[in-house]
Amino acid sequence: MSYLKASEIREILKVTERPEVISFAGGLPAPELFPVKEIKEVNRIVLDESGHKALQYTTTEGYAPLRTWIADRMNTRLGTSFDRDNILITHGSQQALDLSGKVFLDEEDIVLCESPTYLAAISAFRAYGCEFKEVPTGRDGMILDELEKLLQNTKNVKLIYVIPDFQNPTGKTWNYERRKLLAELAMRYGVIVIEDNPYGELRFEGEPLPSVKSFDSEGYVLCTGSFSKIFCPGYRIGWIAGDKDIIRKYVLVKQGTGLQCNTLAQMEIAKYLELYDIDKHISKMIKTYRLRRNLAVKTMENAFPKGITFTVSEGGLFSWVELPTKINARDVLVKSLERNVAFVPGGSFFPNGGKENAFRINFSNMPDDQIVEGLERLGEVLSEFIK
Amino acid sequence: MSYLKASEIREILKVTERPEVISFAGGLPAPELFPVKEIKEVNRIVLDESGHKALQYTTTEGYAPLRTWIADRMNTRLGTSFDRDNILITHGSQQALDLSGKVFLDEEDIVLCESPTYLAAISAFRAYGCEFKEVPTGRDGMILDELEKLLQNTKNVKLIYVIPDFQNPTGKTWNYERRKLLAELAMRYGVIVIEDNPYGELRFEGEPLPSVKSFDSEGYVLCTGSFSKIFCPGYRIGWIAGDKDIIRKYVLVKQGTGLQCNTLAQMEIAKYLELYDIDKHISKMIKTYRLRRNLAVKTMENAFPKGITFTVSEGGLFSWVELPTKINARDVLVKSLERNVAFVPGGSFFPNGGKENAFRINFSNMPDDQIVEGLERLGEVLSEFIK
Repeated sequence: MSYLKASEIREILKVTERPEVISFAGGLPAPELFPVKEIKEVNRIVLDESGHKALQYTTTEGYAPLRTWIADRMNTRLGTSFDRDNILITHGSQQALDLSGKVFLDEEDIVLCESPTYLAAISAFRAYGCEFKEVPTGRDGMILDELEKLLQNTKNVKLIYVIPDFQNPTGKTWNYERRKLLAELAMRYGVIVIEDNPYGELRFEGEPLPSVKSFDSEGYVLCTGSFSKIFCPGYRIGWIAGDKDIIRKYVLVKQGTGLQCNTLAQMEIAKYLELYDIDKHISKMIKTYRLRRNLAVKTMENAFPKGITFTVSEGGLFSWVELPTKINARDVLVKSLERNVAFVPGGSFFPNGGKENAFRINFSNMPDDQIVEGLERLGEVLSEFIK
Repeated sequence: MSYLKASEIREILKVTERPEVISFAGGLPAPELFPVKEIKEVNRIVLDESGHKALQYTTTEGYAPLRTWIADRMNTRLGTSFDRDNILITHGSQQALDLSGKVFLDEEDIVLCESPTYLAAISAFRAYGCEFKEVPTGRDGMILDELEKLLQNTKNVKLIYVIPDFQNPTGKTWNYERRKLLAELAMRYGVIVIEDNPYGELRFEGEPLPSVKSFDSEGYVLCTGSFSKIFCPGYRIGWIAGDKDIIRKYVLVKQGTGLQCNTLAQMEIAKYLELYDIDKHISKMIKTYRLRRNLAVKTMENAFPKGITFTVSEGGLFSWVELPTKINARDVLVKSLERNVAFVPGGSFFPNGGKENAFRINFSNMPDDQIVEGLERLGEVLSEFIK
C-alpha cells in the first residue's frame, strides 16, 4: 500500500516535469545555487592528484577525510562527541533509513513516528514488514506523554523515527525540552531513535537547538545527515552516525546492498570542503530560501481563503497547509493540476492514513515570480472548494 | 553467518591495504587503465552544458540516454530485445542483487545457485532470510539434470542465481546448450533467473555466447550488468534489465533504498560513451588482462607443487585453485599473509559451507612483476603444505 502511495507521488512528480507546471511538490533545492564552477575545479584537482584512487573501489565505511569532517561538524553544531569511526557514508540519508530497516526491523515489528512523518521513511521501513504507530505531534514536536504510553503498552517497538528540525512534511521544529526528554525515554525503555536531520543547517531565524543525540549518554540515538540540501542532491552522499558497535553492523549490512558509495563523489565533496567555504555557500542558500518562504507565506496569507492554516517554518524547505476537515487535498490537486500547479497531498504522510485535509508546499525550488503566480492560482482553486 | 564470513574477507582486504602486500584477494580492475583524462573532460562538458541538471535529483529509473545505450548494447552483444524501459540503473550490479532480494525473497524462501557462487550475492540474498541450495556445477556450468530435480522436489524456490560468463569465483563459462536449457527450465517451472554478468565483455579468446536471456521468450530471466569492470568501479553504476512489469516493481523498491543513482555519474558515463570509443578502451583492458592471466597461469604451472589444479579462464578476472582435500585454504592464507601475499579462501563462496580446499586468485589488479613474485611466494607456501 505504501508502494501504491509512493507510485501516486511519482505520477504527480512526472507531471511536474512539464515546463509549464509550477511545482511545489518535490523537495528539491534551488539548482541555480549549486556551486557548478567550484565542482568543476575540484573534479579536476581530485583526478589530477589521485585519479586512480578516485575511480577505484574503496571501503564500505567511506572516504576517511569526509567522515572526519562530518564528525567534527556534528560535534560543533549538534553537541555530539563523534570521531570518524562513528560515521558511515551512505547513498543519501535515504539509504541510512533503508539500512536501519535492515539492521533493526523484522515482520510485524513496530516503528513509532511523528504524525505526519516523512513519506519515503514509511516506504523504506515498511519494506521490512513493520507496522507504524503514529504518536500525536504538536507545534513543538511529539507529545511525549503519548509516546511513553505507547512504549509502556506496545510490544516489539524497535525504532522511534523523528525529524526534529524543520520536519518533512510540516516544517515544525521540536523544542529543547522534548529533545532532552526523548533521549531520556529512549534510554529508559532501551529503544533506538533515528534522528533524521537533512534540513537542520538551513535555519532562517531563531537559535539552533541541540540534537536529541546530545542528550543520549548510552548510544541509543542514531543521527542521519546529508549533503543533498547543503550541497547537491545529485551526488547521493549522506551519512549515519552513532555508537561504534551499531555502525559496524550497518557497515556489514551496507556491503551487501551496493558495496560502497561513489568514490569520486566522496573525494570531490571532501576537496570542496577543504578548498572552499561551505558556510558561505549555506548562507547564500538560507538567504534565498528565507526570501522564498516569506514570499510564499505572504502570498498564501493574501490569496488563500479563510479557514485555511499553514505553518511558518523557521527553516528547511516546507510549509504544511491544513484545510477544513471536509475538503480532500487529493480533490484539490486534481483541480490544481488543471491550472498547472502541483503539490503533494498530505494523506500519504500518515502511515496509517485517515487524514486527507492537508498538503505540503515546497518553497525552495521555484523562482520568486513562480511562487507568487503558483500560490495565487492555488488560492483561486481553493476558493472554489471553500465558498 | 554470511555476515561473519563477509567480515573475515574484509579483514583480509584491510591487510591488503598495506603497500608491501601483493594482493590476489579483491576483484579490482587495473587502475592504471582508467581513462582519467577523458573523465576530466566529460565532467567539464557535462557541467558546462547542464550543470544544474547534473547536480539535481533525477528519476529513480536513471538517465534516459544511458538506459538507451545499455539496451542497444545488450541487444547487439547478448541477443536480447530491450528498449530503455527494460532497464533500471542501479548502484553497481550489487544493488541489483539487493533489490532482487527485496522484490522476490521472504523468510525461508529458497535460492538455487551454482556451487561455488559469488560471495556478495550470498550476503545480499541472505539478508532477506532465504536459504540456499547449491546445484552441482561442472566445467560447462550448472548440471541441469540436478537443477531440474531440485525444481521438482523443492518448495518455495524463488530465484535461480547464475553467472554464466567467467564466473566469480571459478572463472568458468557455461556452454551454449546449458544456457538454452536453463531458460527452458525457468519457463517450464515458472522460476525467475538472475543472470549476473559483470565480466562478459572481458573475453580474452574464443567466441562470445548468447545470454541465457536470449532464449527466454516469457520474461523469466533478469540480467544484471555493470560499468565497474569495463569503465570504473568508483562510479557505482550498474543496471538490471528484464520484463517491463518486473522492472517497474524494482523501480518502486529502489525508491525506498536511496531514491536514485548519482546523477552526475550517469551523465558523465553517457557523455563518455557519446564522445569516446569504449570498445577501444575495453580492447586495451582485455589485452592487459590476457597478458596477466597468461603470466599467472605460467607462474602457477611452474611454482605450484603437484596435486594442485586451477582454472584457465577465457576471460574475466579470476582463477580458481583447488588443493588436495586435506588442505584448508584458510590455513594456507595465514602462512601466505606472513609472506605478504593475500587471496580469498574458497570456503566463503559455498553458502552452505563444507569445502575448504580451494581459493580464488584475481589476476587483473597487480602489475606483471608482482603477479610473478606473489605467485612464486605462494608456491613456496603451498609446498610446505604438500611435501
